[in-house]
Amino acid sequence: MRSIILLSKIHSPQDIKKLSQKELKQLAQEIRTTIINVVGKNGGHLASNLGVVELTIALHRVFNSPDDAIVWDVSHQCYTHKLLTGRYEEFPTLRKAGGLSGFTNKNESVHDFFINGHSSTSISSALGLLTARELNGNKGKVIAVIGDGALTGGMAFEGLSHAGQLCKNLIVVLNDNQMSIDHNTGSVSRYLSRLTMTAGYQTFRYRVDKAIDKIPYLGRPLEKFIFRFKRSLKGLFLTNNLFVDLGFEYVGPLDGHNEAALERELRRVSRLHRPVVVHVVTKKGKGYSPAENNPELFHGIGPFQISDGTVEKFDTQSFTEAFSNLMCEEGEKNTDIVAITAAMAKGTGLSAFSHRFPERFFDVGIAEEHAVTFAGGLAKGGKVPVVCIYSTFIQRAVDQMIHDIALQKAHSVFILDRAGAVPADGVTHQGIYDIALFRPIPELEIMTVCSAADLKLCFEWAVEKGTSVVIRYPKLTCPTEVPQMSEPVELGRGIFIPCTEFVIENISEAELEAKKNKILIVATGGIYSEVQKAVRSVLLDGGYADVYLLRFIKPFDETYFIELASRYNGVVFVEDGVITGGIGEYLAGLLAEKGMKNNKVLGFEDKFFSHGSREEVLEMAGLSPSHIKKAVKECCN
Amino acid sequence: MRSIILLSKIHSPQDIKKLSQKELKQLAQEIRTTIINVVGKNGGHLASNLGVVELTIALHRVFNSPDDAIVWDVSHQCYTHKLLTGRYEEFPTLRKAGGLSGFTNKNESVHDFFINGHSSTSISSALGLLTARELNGNKGKVIAVIGDGALTGGMAFEGLSHAGQLCKNLIVVLNDNQMSIDHNTGSVSRYLSRLTMTAGYQTFRYRVDKAIDKIPYLGRPLEKFIFRFKRSLKGLFLTNNLFVDLGFEYVGPLDGHNEAALERELRRVSRLHRPVVVHVVTKKGKGYSPAENNPELFHGIGPFQISDGTVEKFDTQSFTEAFSNLMCEEGEKNTDIVAITAAMAKGTGLSAFSHRFPERFFDVGIAEEHAVTFAGGLAKGGKVPVVCIYSTFIQRAVDQMIHDIALQKAHSVFILDRAGAVPADGVTHQGIYDIALFRPIPELEIMTVCSAADLKLCFEWAVEKGTSVVIRYPKLTCPTEVPQMSEPVELGRGIFIPCTEFVIENISEAELEAKKNKILIVATGGIYSEVQKAVRSVLLDGGYADVYLLRFIKPFDETYFIELASRYNGVVFVEDGVITGGIGEYLAGLLAEKGMKNNKVLGFEDKFFSHGSREEVLEMAGLSPSHIKKAVKECCN
Repeated sequence: MRSIILLSKIHSPQDIKKLSQKELKQLAQEIRTTIINVVGKNGGHLASNLGVVELTIALHRVFNSPDDAIVWDVSHQCYTHKLLTGRYEEFPTLRKAGGLSGFTNKNESVHDFFINGHSSTSISSALGLLTARELNGNKGKVIAVIGDGALTGGMAFEGLSHAGQLCKNLIVVLNDNQMSIDHNTGSVSRYLSRLTMTAGYQTFRYRVDKAIDKIPYLGRPLEKFIFRFKRSLKGLFLTNNLFVDLGFEYVGPLDGHNEAALERELRRVSRLHRPVVVHVVTKKGKGYSPAENNPELFHGIGPFQISDGTVEKFDTQSFTEAFSNLMCEEGEKNTDIVAITAAMAKGTGLSAFSHRFPERFFDVGIAEEHAVTFAGGLAKGGKVPVVCIYSTFIQRAVDQMIHDIALQKAHSVFILDRAGAVPADGVTHQGIYDIALFRPIPELEIMTVCSAADLKLCFEWAVEKGTSVVIRYPKLTCPTEVPQMSEPVELGRGIFIPCTEFVIENISEAELEAKKNKILIVATGGIYSEVQKAVRSVLLDGGYADVYLLRFIKPFDETYFIELASRYNGVVFVEDGVITGGIGEYLAGLLAEKGMKNNKVLGFEDKFFSHGSREEVLEMAGLSPSHIKKAVKECCN
Repeated sequence: MRSIILLSKIHSPQDIKKLSQKELKQLAQEIRTTIINVVGKNGGHLASNLGVVELTIALHRVFNSPDDAIVWDVSHQCYTHKLLTGRYEEFPTLRKAGGLSGFTNKNESVHDFFINGHSSTSISSALGLLTARELNGNKGKVIAVIGDGALTGGMAFEGLSHAGQLCKNLIVVLNDNQMSIDHNTGSVSRYLSRLTMTAGYQTFRYRVDKAIDKIPYLGRPLEKFIFRFKRSLKGLFLTNNLFVDLGFEYVGPLDGHNEAALERELRRVSRLHRPVVVHVVTKKGKGYSPAENNPELFHGIGPFQISDGTVEKFDTQSFTEAFSNLMCEEGEKNTDIVAITAAMAKGTGLSAFSHRFPERFFDVGIAEEHAVTFAGGLAKGGKVPVVCIYSTFIQRAVDQMIHDIALQKAHSVFILDRAGAVPADGVTHQGIYDIALFRPIPELEIMTVCSAADLKLCFEWAVEKGTSVVIRYPKLTCPTEVPQMSEPVELGRGIFIPCTEFVIENISEAELEAKKNKILIVATGGIYSEVQKAVRSVLLDGGYADVYLLRFIKPFDETYFIELASRYNGVVFVEDGVITGGIGEYLAGLLAEKGMKNNKVLGFEDKFFSHGSREEVLEMAGLSPSHIKKAVKECCN
């Protein structure tokens, strides 16, 4: 391992301005080493970060952050930026509870302008920031750095279109690595490749531009003339392109790993007084061969062996893997099933289906809105679309869920992976809003599942049912099955697991029956593992708690539930989602109206939750096994 | 008025296929007369519908609906389509309760494929439908008809990009009237104008295409060659364009009022086996001079005088007008205020501000996602963005409200007009989800206002506050003020109005004080008019009800509220939003937990609500004054 000499002395972007070309090369090496070491230990986004080392150095040498603002789209490529803006010392805490966030965070540094984590927003927020600065008479530049994947998101297009109209000197750096998270598909990607192939023209154009640059500055009118001249040249020598059509100047494609050349072009660009797209071609995973060879795997990754990139394989099956197998089985049986992902084939477990049934698999790019409405169209045509999206990203398509799914009564299934507490990614990625956002939508059915067997039953039910069904589960290993999890689905009802299933010491049924304070724990499927631990601990302490797992959030069999709850001395609701608007809050109110007031509602309180391991996030949220046990105890008082 | 001879005999699109060119001209006349007459009486979308008469006729002559599917974007241009698909007799019931919807509705006709009302979805749903049909071996064509305004929505771009990738023979008819609802702004619009000006090239190209068409069909390989040839021609003679860049063939611009020419081109297009954009230029309001001259006013309009287009002016002030004035006043006082609309400057009352402070006004096109995130950027730059959007359309930007506003603690104000029951537009436009969707978002404050004075106070408070504040109000005349509405804003608290404010007969305070059953009505501001009527009626019947209007949905001063409610024998919650996830449901639960179980919750039940007048919609929802009165009575039993 190379030792870190230069990087440890960089405390602000000013410190890299005086480095020589040779030193910059060494700096890039040191940055890569640091990133690989820390991500190898903590997990994180590796490939995207290794791809932008030179680009980030060039940006920070040409521009003066924070007077000039660099806005990182999604910001899963901000590690070099963090290392160059005074966060080298803290970098080993990356993604750890209390440590650096894996994304930009305005509370962490003045060089981070927003808390970013969702895709395709950078052009919009950068344009807003630039507009405000101009209204304030502030001359600072604003640069949005956006990947080719994020560019497939419609919002990016909305932003480009508005920026072209306003004609402000917004600088959009297009970081084109021919990837989003999976291999980038779609016309935009194909189009960018085509642009890249026209490099010959660009070389010519740069020569012309260079000659023009030598003309001394003669004020606005001449500058305008030069632009017109440049543009007419472009008209003669190459067709317009997408960005030019939207009112941007276009510069590129540039080699994203040639720092000196990047710097040269960025300096030119910084003198423009028009919106400009700088098209930079980078290689995901650059400088670490395991990541270069398998950028999908190394996009977001857990800890790995640094020497060869080996990732530890576990014997246990995650919900994602269970779904992956299920989708192939069901796809075999029912040829009407089609699968849709928004650039997350691997993350959602759809890769296997995509290889097996390519004609029934659709990766629409980072475009959740389109994914959902496209599914509505497929349903109208008699197919059974299964849309697989992370819980946090379905927030992008709430209106489409209302307007193009529920209102149309579209027979469709939505698989929300990463629901509940999400490890390490933090505040922008917690999957805790889906229940509250979807409960108010008529005609939409919402299910939570607690095990692989339960998932299979619920999925089969949803495929058969003919309605619009949302199924959510966490990023987690599937727990050990108990027999009740395999009981058939009954509309509106959940899974009742008596405490006897959890008895680990020898307690007789008679002893249990004799307990005075019997508590019912009502929980969403995603928090079952913690509930199970809590119940065991309660039993060991001589308490008593049965469990009712909510298969259905909606529709909900209230009569059945009230009758069940009335047999207990108290009810503890445990929900891996926000309390406000959640099912626990509602059911507690319902019981109170029936005179059953001894309830506790556990869930995510009304604030944002930062990063940490699943356990740490649940601890912060008051949803750990010990919190659940405590609530059970409190209900006994 | 011309008499209707031909149109009354059209019962299906088949009936227009045999008409002569002369008869088609007469048919177009009769359609325009019918539309003007009915919209003059019922109100509705006039200008957009008059613009597509010939286009709709041509589409229905060339294609065979419903074997071929025509998907109308937003579908506020579907009146001719309705008239040609067997709905002439019912047409006078347009937008009336129980009558025809003003939009396409799949429950109304097999010729309507979706229930549409929100913008920019047609390409996605049409592509889904086409993909399903192809998988099923169905050879029917699918045509999406989308306006240039809707094309600024990012979803449309996502759909185009995916369609270009899939390379299916989707036909996108771009209805370009240089308008969305207001004058279309943005690069896309400017770009389309530029395309339109290249008509000379197109003429040449058509001649070439025509020559190619004469070559007999020789199977796939030759066809491919011809396409290559066409494309190389295009490369030689004109730059590529945006649509070609995304993988589409491009045909146009065509004169949208020359039915014969449109038909000719559409027939050619129907034989293509690739995605194609047909660019049609139409005139909004065509054939009715008041609408041609003022297409914004006649986009969506109430009843008007048919002879000259005069619209009745009322003396009373609507919430929109009150806000319009307020925005100018506040904009004068506070130069940090900037205004943002998503193509609704007139509808949201921002026109006045836009004329007065053009440099602080931003119309981003139909792009709610970008509008919200752009506001986040402006806030970061120190401005106070005021984003004005209809309640139903903010559903498009839920994730942006979470990720780019609340999480960033962006000082910003969101004005949700058309909250609650929306007259005539119906199921896609009811503004009833905002409270339930926004309550779960941390750091977001939600206010409802009941009068012009209240709006002023709340708006000033929001501008001063420094937080992210949502203010909602209905499409309604501002009610008569009562003094309490002008009491200063207190965080988390509402407006208490004792029943003495509503006493219209002579009842002494002592008599009132002596009443046995005192009820508190807790209501959102938007439903105040109905509450006021209900209270008067309750008092006349010898009952007693005070009113607590919820200025704040969030944050909410629970202690204060519980103390207030505890003085009553029962509480009736009245909310002009959905019950599920709403504030009424929550507060009723809260009171029940405190032992106050005599509550009723009125609001929109868990189903979709169709069109009718405001009064009719509230009647359907159980929110009329008599429903409220009934609930008060029930609480007294």
